Amino acid sequence: MDLNADLGESFGSWKMGDDAAMFQLVTSANVACGFHAGDPITMLDSCRAAYELDVTVGAHVGYRDLAGFGRRSLDASFDELFGDVLYQLGALDGVAHAVGASVDYVKPHGALYNRLVHDAGQAEAVVAAVSAYDPGLPILGLPGSELLKQAREAGHPVFVEAFADRAYQADGTLVPRSQEGAVLHDVDAVVERAVRMATKGEVVAVDGTVVQVRPDSLCIHGDTPGAVEMAAGVRAGLVAAGVELESFA
Amino acid sequence: MDLNADLGESFGSWKMGDDAAMFQLVTSANVACGFHAGDPITMLDSCRAAYELDVTVGAHVGYRDLAGFGRRSLDASFDELFGDVLYQLGALDGVAHAVGASVDYVKPHGALYNRLVHDAGQAEAVVAAVSAYDPGLPILGLPGSELLKQAREAGHPVFVEAFADRAYQADGTLVPRSQEGAVLHDVDAVVERAVRMATKGEVVAVDGTVVQVRPDSLCIHGDTPGAVEMAAGVRAGLVAAGVELESFA
Amino acid sequence: MDLNADLGESFGSWKMGDDAAMFQLVTSANVACGFHAGDPITMLDSCRAAYELDVTVGAHVGYRDLAGFGRRSLDASFDELFGDVLYQLGALDGVAHAVGASVDYVKPHGALYNRLVHDAGQAEAVVAAVSAYDPGLPILGLPGSELLKQAREAGHPVFVEAFADRAYQADGTLVPRSQEGAVLHDVDAVVERAVRMATKGEVVAVDGTVVQVRPDSLCIHGDTPGAVEMAAGVRAGLVAAGVELESFA
Amino acid sequence: MDLNADLGESFGSWKMGDDAAMFQLVTSANVACGFHAGDPITMLDSCRAAYELDVTVGAHVGYRDLAGFGRRSLDASFDELFGDVLYQLGALDGVAHAVGASVDYVKPHGALYNRLVHDAGQAEAVVAAVSAYDPGLPILGLPGSELLKQAREAGHPVFVEAFADRAYQADGTLVPRSQEGAVLHDVDAVVERAVRMATKGEVVAVDGTVVQVRPDSLCIHGDTPGAVEMAAGVRAGLVAAGVELESFA
Repeated sequence: MDLNADLGESFGSWKMGDDAAMFQLVTSANVACGFHAGDPITMLDSCRAAYELDVTVGAHVGYRDLAGFGRRSLDASFDELFGDVLYQLGALDGVAHAVGASVDYVKPHGALYNRLVHDAGQAEAVVAAVSAYDPGLPILGLPGSELLKQAREAGHPVFVEAFADRAYQADGTLVPRSQEGAVLHDVDAVVERAVRMATKGEVVAVDGTVVQVRPDSLCIHGDTPGAVEMAAGVRAGLVAAGVELESFA
Repeated sequence: MDLNADLGESFGSWKMGDDAAMFQLVTSANVACGFHAGDPITMLDSCRAAYELDVTVGAHVGYRDLAGFGRRSLDASFDELFGDVLYQLGALDGVAHAVGASVDYVKPHGALYNRLVHDAGQAEAVVAAVSAYDPGLPILGLPGSELLKQAREAGHPVFVEAFADRAYQADGTLVPRSQEGAVLHDVDAVVERAVRMATKGEVVAVDGTVVQVRPDSLCIHGDTPGAVEMAAGVRAGLVAAGVELESFA
Repeated sequence: MDLNADLGESFGSWKMGDDAAMFQLVTSANVACGFHAGDPITMLDSCRAAYELDVTVGAHVGYRDLAGFGRRSLDASFDELFGDVLYQLGALDGVAHAVGASVDYVKPHGALYNRLVHDAGQAEAVVAAVSAYDPGLPILGLPGSELLKQAREAGHPVFVEAFADRAYQADGTLVPRSQEGAVLHDVDAVVERAVRMATKGEVVAVDGTVVQVRPDSLCIHGDTPGAVEMAAGVRAGLVAAGVELESFA
Repeated sequence: MDLNADLGESFGSWKMGDDAAMFQLVTSANVACGFHAGDPITMLDSCRAAYELDVTVGAHVGYRDLAGFGRRSLDASFDELFGDVLYQLGALDGVAHAVGASVDYVKPHGALYNRLVHDAGQAEAVVAAVSAYDPGLPILGLPGSELLKQAREAGHPVFVEAFADRAYQADGTLVPRSQEGAVLHDVDAVVERAVRMATKGEVVAVDGTVVQVRPDSLCIHGDTPGAVEMAAGVRAGLVAAGVELESFA
C-alpha cells in the first residue's frame, strides 16, 4: 500500500506543514509546483528529501492562484489549463532531475482535483497535457472521477486513492466536508479504517453499509494540527498489520 | 551566422512584438519562461512556431518580476536564483517537448543579463543551475562577461553575441544606453554593420577605432517600432553578402 | 447621456488600448485597479488624464487574476471578495486623490461583472465592500442584475448601462457572445442604435421587437481594432443628435 | 514610549507570527499592504484588532515581491516606487476605514527600509508618494537615514526607532546582522536595554561606549521563536519602570 500526502506547500518566507516529519512517513509525495503553492527552493528541498528517503515524487498540479491556495474553482479554458499543467510538470521535473529525482506521477490539487471529478472539459485538458508530457505517466485520483476515466481511455496508468480520515456514503463517495462528521479526528478510528481499507479493501459507510474500496494509495494530511501524529499512527498501524508500504508508481 | 531575438514576451491578454513576423527572420529565439514575461500558452505558441520554422529555442531566463518585465536589478540570493533558473528551464523544456521542440541554449534576460556581466555571485548561481539541468547546454551572452567566463570554466559551450544596432566603444564594450547615439536607428547603417560583423568580425567604434568582434550570433530586437523592418533588412543584407544563416546551437 | 469605457488596462511593459484617444471621447472611465489589469503608474496616468479632461473615474474592480485578465469566473468566498473589492477601491482612490481626482463610482469587470448578474452571494460581498467604503458611492451595472438589485436595497445610487454594439433579445437581455451576430461591427448601425437608445430609450431586438431600455450610460469598447473609430462615431452621432454628454456620477 | 512591530504578514493560507498575542503588546502596528506580505483579509483582521485594542496602524510599505517577502533590494524607478507606495497607502487606508481605523503613519519594510538609509533617489520617491497622499502623515524610520532627512525637509513629522535586541556600534549605527552578536536573544538583557533606552535615552555599544539614542519608538519582532515572550518581557519591563506606553502618532 502507498501512503501519499501533499508536501512542499511552503512559499517563500511562509512555511506550511512539517515536511521534515512527513517525508519520513509517506511513500509518495504530491509536491506543489509553484502555481497554488511551492517555490523553486521548496521544490528543490522536497525533491532532495524524497530522493534521500526513497519517496516517490508526484506533480501536484493546481490552478494558478497563490492568493487562494488553489482552493477556488476557476473557469480556466482548455488551452490555459493544458499550458498550465504542462508548465508545472516541466518545472517540477526540471527541479527533480537536478537532484537525482524524477516526477513519477501526477495528482491534481484542491479545487482542480474536485472539479475534475465531474468537469469533462477540464479533465480533457489535464489529461491532454499529461499525455503531451509523457503518455506513460501515472495519474492518481478519485475513483469514479472524470479525470481517471479519461486518463484510462488515453492509455495512462491510473491509480485510485482513499481517505481513512473521511466519512464515506453508501455509494462509495465521500461525505461532503460541509456535513458534520465528514472528517474523522480520532487516531485509533482512522488507523483501524486505514488497516481495513488496506487489508480487506472495504470501509464502513455512515449508514453502516460495508463499501468496497480498493485503493492503490491512502491519502494522509500534513498541514493540520495533529497531522503528523495521525500519519505516524496510520503508518505504524499498517506496518503492524503486515501491510507492505511502497509507492504505486 | 545566427540571428537571435527575444520572442514569446506576451503575457495573458497582453501582446508584445510581432512574433509571427520575427519567427520568420531569426535562426534562434530567446523564449521568455514566465518569470519576467511569457505564459504557458505563449510559450507553446513560440515553441510551435520555432519547430515549424526550424528556429532554435533558447530559454530566456529572467528575474521573477512581471511588474518590472525583469528590467530591474534584484538582489536574489544564490539559492533563489539557482532555483528560479532551474524552474524556468524545466518549464520551457517541458512545454517545448510537448510540441516536438527542445531547449537548446540559455540566455539571461534584461537586468539579469546586465548584472551577470560583473556579478560573480549571481553568475555562479545561474551557471550552477544550467549545469544542474544539463552540463552540456550552450550559454549565449556578452563577450567578456562574468557569466561566460564561469560558464566556460564549468565546461559549457559558450557563444557570444554582438549588436549591430548598438554603438561600441574602443575597448569593445557597448556605449551605455544613457548616452546619446547609443542605439542606431538607420536601417542601412545597421545592415552595413551587421554584414561587417558577420564577414570581417569587426565593428567601427564611436571614436573611429576598428574593434575586433567575433560574434556567434547577432541580436536583433523585435518589440520596438520598426523592429521587423530592421530585422528583415539585416537578414536580407546578410543573405545578400553570402552569409549563411544558421543557429549556433 | 454618459459614455463609459474600460481604460487603464495596461500592465507594466504591456500596453492595451489607445487610452490617449479614448479619454478624449468618454465621460466616464472604468479604471482597472491592479487585480485583473492596471498597475500603479498606469492608474496614475489614467487619473491624471481623467482629471485634465474632466472625465469621471470609476473603480473597475475585478477578480485577482492577472494571467486571465479577470475574464475567468472564480469561486471567491464572501470574505475574499469583500476584501479584494475594498482593497482595490482604496488603492485607486489613493492614487486618484494624489492627482486631484477621486473615485466616483464602481463597475465590476469581466467575469465578475457577468457573475454578478445572477450570483447573489458574490453580489452581496461586492455591495457590502462598496458600502463599507462609502455608502453613497454609485454603482454602474447591467439592468436586472443581482448586483444592482442588492445595491439599490443597500441604498446605493445605481445606474444602468446599455451596449450600442451588442444585439438584444426581446426580453431586454443581451444575445450571448457565443451566438452569431451578438456583436455589431458596422459603425453606422451602431451609431444609429446609440442615438435611438439615448433619445428614445429603445432598441430593436433581433426578432424585430422594440425593447425599452433607459440607460444612464452607454458602454463603448477601447481595446479592439477599430474601437477608437467606433467610439468617435458614437460620440459624434450623439452630439449631432443633440444629446448632451455628461457623466451620471 | 511606543512599541511597534511588523504585523499582518500572513498571506492567503500561509500564516506568519502570532498576531493575536502581539496586538495585545504593541502600541503601533506596521501592517503589511499586500506587496511583500499581507492580503485584504489579513489587512482587515489587522485593522480590526488594532481598532479594538487601541493600537495605531501604520502602513508597512514594501517592494512588490511576495516571493522574496520584500527582503531583496530592487532597482525600482522613481515612478514605480512613487506609484507602489501610493497604491499600498490607499489600499490599507481603504481597508482601515471600513472597520473604523485609519492609517496614521508610514514605515518602510525590509530591503526598502534598508535601502532608504542611503539611497537618496528611492527616498525621494517614497517621501513624494507619502506627501502626495497626505502631507501631514508621520514617517517612522532609522535615525540618520536619508528617508527621515528628506521626510523632515518635506515637512512630515518624523519619528525614530531603536532596537533593544540589536547590538549598536559606537557611532550609533547597528552592528550588521552578518556579524556575530548582532542580535541579542537574552530576554533580561533586552528588557534592560529597552528600559535604559526609554528612560535615559542611551544604549551601551559593543565597545562599551554609551551612545545617545532618543527613540520615539522601540521596534520589537513578532515572527521569530520566542518573539512573543520577548515582547511581553519588554512591555512588562517598561511598565515596571514607570514608562508610559502610547503611540507616537
